[in-house]
Amino acid sequence: MRAPGASTSPFSALHHADAPLLLPNAWDHASAVAMARRGFPAIGTTSLAVAAALGLPDGAAATRDETLELALVLGSQPFLLSVDAENGFSEDPDEVAEFARLLAAVGVVGINLEDGMGAVDRHAAKIAAVKAAVPGLFVNARTDTYWLGGHDEAETLSRLDAYQQAGADGVFVPGLTDERRIAALVARLDVPLNILYSPTGPAVSHLADLGVRRVSLGSLLYRRALGAALETLDAIGAGRRVSGRTPTYAETLDYGVAAPADR
Amino acid sequence: MRAPGASTSPFSALHHADAPLLLPNAWDHASAVAMARRGFPAIGTTSLAVAAALGLPDGAAATRDETLELALVLGSQPFLLSVDAENGFSEDPDEVAEFARLLAAVGVVGINLEDGMGAVDRHAAKIAAVKAAVPGLFVNARTDTYWLGGHDEAETLSRLDAYQQAGADGVFVPGLTDERRIAALVARLDVPLNILYSPTGPAVSHLADLGVRRVSLGSLLYRRALGAALETLDAIGAGRRVSGRTPTYAETLDYGVAAPADR
Repeated sequence: MRAPGASTSPFSALHHADAPLLLPNAWDHASAVAMARRGFPAIGTTSLAVAAALGLPDGAAATRDETLELALVLGSQPFLLSVDAENGFSEDPDEVAEFARLLAAVGVVGINLEDGMGAVDRHAAKIAAVKAAVPGLFVNARTDTYWLGGHDEAETLSRLDAYQQAGADGVFVPGLTDERRIAALVARLDVPLNILYSPTGPAVSHLADLGVRRVSLGSLLYRRALGAALETLDAIGAGRRVSGRTPTYAETLDYGVAAPADR
Repeated sequence: MRAPGASTSPFSALHHADAPLLLPNAWDHASAVAMARRGFPAIGTTSLAVAAALGLPDGAAATRDETLELALVLGSQPFLLSVDAENGFSEDPDEVAEFARLLAAVGVVGINLEDGMGAVDRHAAKIAAVKAAVPGLFVNARTDTYWLGGHDEAETLSRLDAYQQAGADGVFVPGLTDERRIAALVARLDVPLNILYSPTGPAVSHLADLGVRRVSLGSLLYRRALGAALETLDAIGAGRRVSGRTPTYAETLDYGVAAPADR
């Protein structure tokens, strides 16, 4: 592990605690507040939800503004907020750094930056630019070697090494669920490894045993929320009873109301 | 029932079909598209979700802009869109009519206007102003005698009568679930009655038998979605398997992508 000092924020500390950071990803104010109140100190966003909520393709440039708007809504809440910033919404490292500065200004303490299997040097330059502009912002560098690429172990390590050299505070390999490969990667990395939880992959406790320091849920909770709404609609249409946890109107309103930090 | 001609839109026709209109309420683009693709010709919005998604109190004036923004996102989609416009976000009938005109301009075919137990004449004036400005817009006039008030049958009928005299195309009594009272109201009304589905109230088929012409789900699907996300988060944290319908990433993206009307 990197020597202390590179990043000493409360959010960074959660990556170096006894248990890995389980990071739920919210899609709006109420979902974020409801998750935080279940005892999660940090909440992430998910670009899929930002895009799907607005009818935009995931990765569209128009999602930049919406990503910032969601950060504005959530940034003042009493939890640590990490934002899925896709590829930084630009190939210009300075523009990515400016976006990171805006996010930090509204209270964001961490961002994800994905390489989309593009040029390694370009992605490393974005990471370096962000760390130079906002040193306290936790940069989680994501490689898409599993999500979009050919699952190449050497390529993955090579990319992650470049990103940690550029100053990344953590690295993220969504789509990687193979236990041996996860353990091998942990052994070679200097910074915390983030794995995307998969319902068909290792449990969180198992990922912890493998040395994973952060487990994020990506779009899973948003997708399950959508699926549950459709299940409920089908049940009502068919005259069946509605089942499953359903917050009351008052509880939902309470999740929705902006709360001061000391709430 | 009112003679044909008062409103002959496709949305109005759904209130006069063999079965009552079951109107699911969505909270974003993906949820609306997913519901529509299950065969629902019309989709509603819910002010609770608009408010809770943004951290605003339900009924706050700031939700006016967000209500319009959601209508913009959904108005061009290939389903009929009805918008929960709260009290019209103004006590000035002309301002309410102007808001209705904006909604209709982005593709909205119906709105709910709630009286919040305020002055009957004022609410009737809003309804009349909207119908004068946008005759083709289906105005569903809501009274809050059950939602906020004392469950007074005479007061309810008196208010609804004033609203239908003012030109309302339908009337809505959220919170009313008593079968005898529903049937009595249907017998006295000239326009379709809308009831809010309750998991502890009559089933949709029973409401149909009572003469209800529209059954809306209000915030129920949004609240169940939120509850399912929390259930899933708890399950993952506890190392249990995730259960329940969960659209894939690709399916969710597909719900999220803006579709042409002929899709």
